[in-house]
Amino acid sequence: MLFLARMDVVFPDHLTAEQVADFQAREKEYSASLQRSGKMQGIWRVVGEYANHSLYNVESNDELHEILSGFPMYPYMKIKVTPLAKHPNSLV
Amino acid sequence: MLFLARMDVVFPDHLTAEQVADFQAREKEYSASLQRSGKMQGIWRVVGEYANHSLYNVESNDELHEILSGFPMYPYMKIKVTPLAKHPNSLV
Amino acid sequence: MLFLARMDVVFPDHLTAEQVADFQAREKEYSASLQRSGKMQGIWRVVGEYANHSLYNVESNDELHEILSGFPMYPYMKIKVTPLAKHPNSLV
Amino acid sequence: MLFLARMDVVFPDHLTAEQVADFQAREKEYSASLQRSGKMQGIWRVVGEYANHSLYNVESNDELHEILSGFPMYPYMKIKVTPLAKHPNSLV
Amino acid sequence: MLFLARMDVVFPDHLTAEQVADFQAREKEYSASLQRSGKMQGIWRVVGEYANHSLYNVESNDELHEILSGFPMYPYMKIKVTPLAKHPNSLV
Amino acid sequence: MLFLARMDVVFPDHLTAEQVADFQAREKEYSASLQRSGKMQGIWRVVGEYANHSLYNVESNDELHEILSGFPMYPYMKIKVTPLAKHPNSLV
Amino acid sequence: MLFLARMDVVFPDHLTAEQVADFQAREKEYSASLQRSGKMQGIWRVVGEYANHSLYNVESNDELHEILSGFPMYPYMKIKVTPLAKHPNSLV
Amino acid sequence: MLFLARMDVVFPDHLTAEQVADFQAREKEYSASLQRSGKMQGIWRVVGEYANHSLYNVESNDELHEILSGFPMYPYMKIKVTPLAKHPNSLV
Amino acid sequence: MLFLARMDVVFPDHLTAEQVADFQAREKEYSASLQRSGKMQGIWRVVGEYANHSLYNVESNDELHEILSGFPMYPYMKIKVTPLAKHPNSLV
Amino acid sequence: MLFLARMDVVFPDHLTAEQVADFQAREKEYSASLQRSGKMQGIWRVVGEYANHSLYNVESNDELHEILSGFPMYPYMKIKVTPLAKHPNSLV
Repeated sequence: MLFLARMDVVFPDHLTAEQVADFQAREKEYSASLQRSGKMQGIWRVVGEYANHSLYNVESNDELHEILSGFPMYPYMKIKVTPLAKHPNSLV
Repeated sequence: MLFLARMDVVFPDHLTAEQVADFQAREKEYSASLQRSGKMQGIWRVVGEYANHSLYNVESNDELHEILSGFPMYPYMKIKVTPLAKHPNSLV
Repeated sequence: MLFLARMDVVFPDHLTAEQVADFQAREKEYSASLQRSGKMQGIWRVVGEYANHSLYNVESNDELHEILSGFPMYPYMKIKVTPLAKHPNSLV
Repeated sequence: MLFLARMDVVFPDHLTAEQVADFQAREKEYSASLQRSGKMQGIWRVVGEYANHSLYNVESNDELHEILSGFPMYPYMKIKVTPLAKHPNSLV
Repeated sequence: MLFLARMDVVFPDHLTAEQVADFQAREKEYSASLQRSGKMQGIWRVVGEYANHSLYNVESNDELHEILSGFPMYPYMKIKVTPLAKHPNSLV
Repeated sequence: MLFLARMDVVFPDHLTAEQVADFQAREKEYSASLQRSGKMQGIWRVVGEYANHSLYNVESNDELHEILSGFPMYPYMKIKVTPLAKHPNSLV
Repeated sequence: MLFLARMDVVFPDHLTAEQVADFQAREKEYSASLQRSGKMQGIWRVVGEYANHSLYNVESNDELHEILSGFPMYPYMKIKVTPLAKHPNSLV
Repeated sequence: MLFLARMDVVFPDHLTAEQVADFQAREKEYSASLQRSGKMQGIWRVVGEYANHSLYNVESNDELHEILSGFPMYPYMKIKVTPLAKHPNSLV
Repeated sequence: MLFLARMDVVFPDHLTAEQVADFQAREKEYSASLQRSGKMQGIWRVVGEYANHSLYNVESNDELHEILSGFPMYPYMKIKVTPLAKHPNSLV
Repeated sequence: MLFLARMDVVFPDHLTAEQVADFQAREKEYSASLQRSGKMQGIWRVVGEYANHSLYNVESNDELHEILSGFPMYPYMKIKVTPLAKHPNSLV
């Protein structure tokens, strides 16, 4: 079951460069793990913005919320989720 | 080079059911052709809406516009395009 | 798996009162059937608007889209779907 | 008399993790109490967001405002309330 | 229990001047009846717009919806309802 | 001459509980004075929000601005004003 | 007492060029009359749009609504009114 | 050549009352100078808001930007500019 | 003096394919003439939309409005104009 | 391949005037370098706003994102990118 998410990141001013780098490193690791398990099927940068579109393949809404809220940078993200269904014109 | 599109379809009232069916048949064929060529890498229905998100892999903006404006139902679509770049956390 | 939908209905001008009544009768029947099967867990009128909030319990996004697009008045509805997860403070 | 609320929570940066945890614990307790009394008939997490939809059964607008403004995290919530009426297609 | 409504009226093009005048006459009568019963506590024209703000005193959401959907021009109105509670600074 | 206002209050984080309480006490007094003079003809809480709708009867735009900007909490308010005219269906 | 209005004009498709020209001629005459009386203190075209900003000097909201609703093209206008007060930095 | 501007002022919390007063005094002087030179042809307070509409008569876009960015409070303003053309119904 | 415009075209349903083609031919000619005179310094298609961004070099707001309202498809366009000034970082 | 960007700059309060000046100097240098290489084909100030429209000629979305995210003031910018295609009416 697929969901498209758009995530916008806004870091508060008080974070140090080190803290930001640490968040980003943990985010990279978490994101890699989701891709390896097949839960995240793609992640793309929105050109010119600190934002991504990413595609999730999950069993349930609960699983998706657990995944999304598990992102290290979740407290600094604004996320909008769109549930996707099979399109009649899709070949796959 | 990837682009995400969201397409919303609104048919005018004066179209007959036959005309709509004809548009949809040609749309399906066109969409299949784009998928076979690899230009369209995915198309998903937005749950509950006459809308899709679709993903395009093209050489240029001009090619993308040619593809999008070639949809049989293009005159009845509202399309928003988001250019995508490689995300640093993407494994592919 | 729960989803909240908001549906706004706009009938085109050319429908006759009989056609509208027919749509509404079939809508009522379809809605009753969904409630009996447990797929629709509630439907409420938004005060002052030709709109509802309704709650669905389904197995997948595909099933939800099938249900929503099956409403007799679907062509005249604007639907927005919100996927819901279990809330940590919910007792049920 | 039913009302649907959407609540979005934004904590200010200066709160410590302990303060947040304390707010959340009191919120849980308050929310449980509302559910036991039947005043809150449901609460669901919006997937991917620090937000909920919740359903209230109250005698009056005044009672609803008293309930909503009594949430421990009320000062950090943005709430939008939708009054609901019986839907003609509802079986209950 | 008080509710504030904003109503915007848009007549479709196909109505004749006579039809519009008839709607307005019935609207006036209905509105007068609501005011005499105390259900409508005030109605004001928004300057420069075919719109009003009006104030309702009702027993329930259901009663309010019945009143609002009873306006002769209801099919041509867009209505937004705001539930009101007693303000701590109000003297009445 | 009547105007409807919607006021949304947002206090900055640095205010102490005492400062907030002081603002609220002065606000109550100011609001009472406006009601006694007939300048404010009503004030209602928007359910679930730190906001009100209030109704003013003034001689001029200048008088209204003087009244609104005189609220003790004015620097923390976002105000939107709607000028009202007599409605043809109003009995008063 | 001054008010700023923005008016956007949208003619329905069914009007003939002659009907439009007739509306525009009557509009010009009405507008001239308002300027001569000092009620309208200025009218400017928004560049690139069938819209204007205009400035009114009236005694009351009722008078303003009467003026605005008296425009021949009023049924085809969308008007937004902003009440203006004396600015402390204005020399006049 | 005329332009209409709407300016909304938001002071950051850290400014002292003295700093604000100083800004306002310099703003008043600057605004007076613009009015004396004929560059600013009017400035009006938006009722209930820390905002104004003002009208500029300049030779070019560059001159207008120089004038607007020269306001002492420019860093705390959000400005929207509308270019105006002669209206065919204007008598002046 | 430069202005950026965004133009969105919406043709009404009743136009025939011939009428649309005729509009487009005249539009092309008009647009070419503006480019040859240097008044239009560029025009680009917004990918996926029946819309353009175009850049104008004119002497005044009045000249710009005359140019824009002279487009054959002007009645079917929605135009938004942004006045541009020299940027301090521009090399030209 | 052309892209239009709109960039809005908001500096956080804690930056000193020296820090801002340093950012602006590095921005100017970076912007000049982009113009000399032909990557940036134009940059214009939006009148009355700390914002620009700029035009980029790049080989790919990835290159564009690299360029945009390389701006010294990138962390303080909100950027919206519009992909452009050749317009059929363009002479170049």
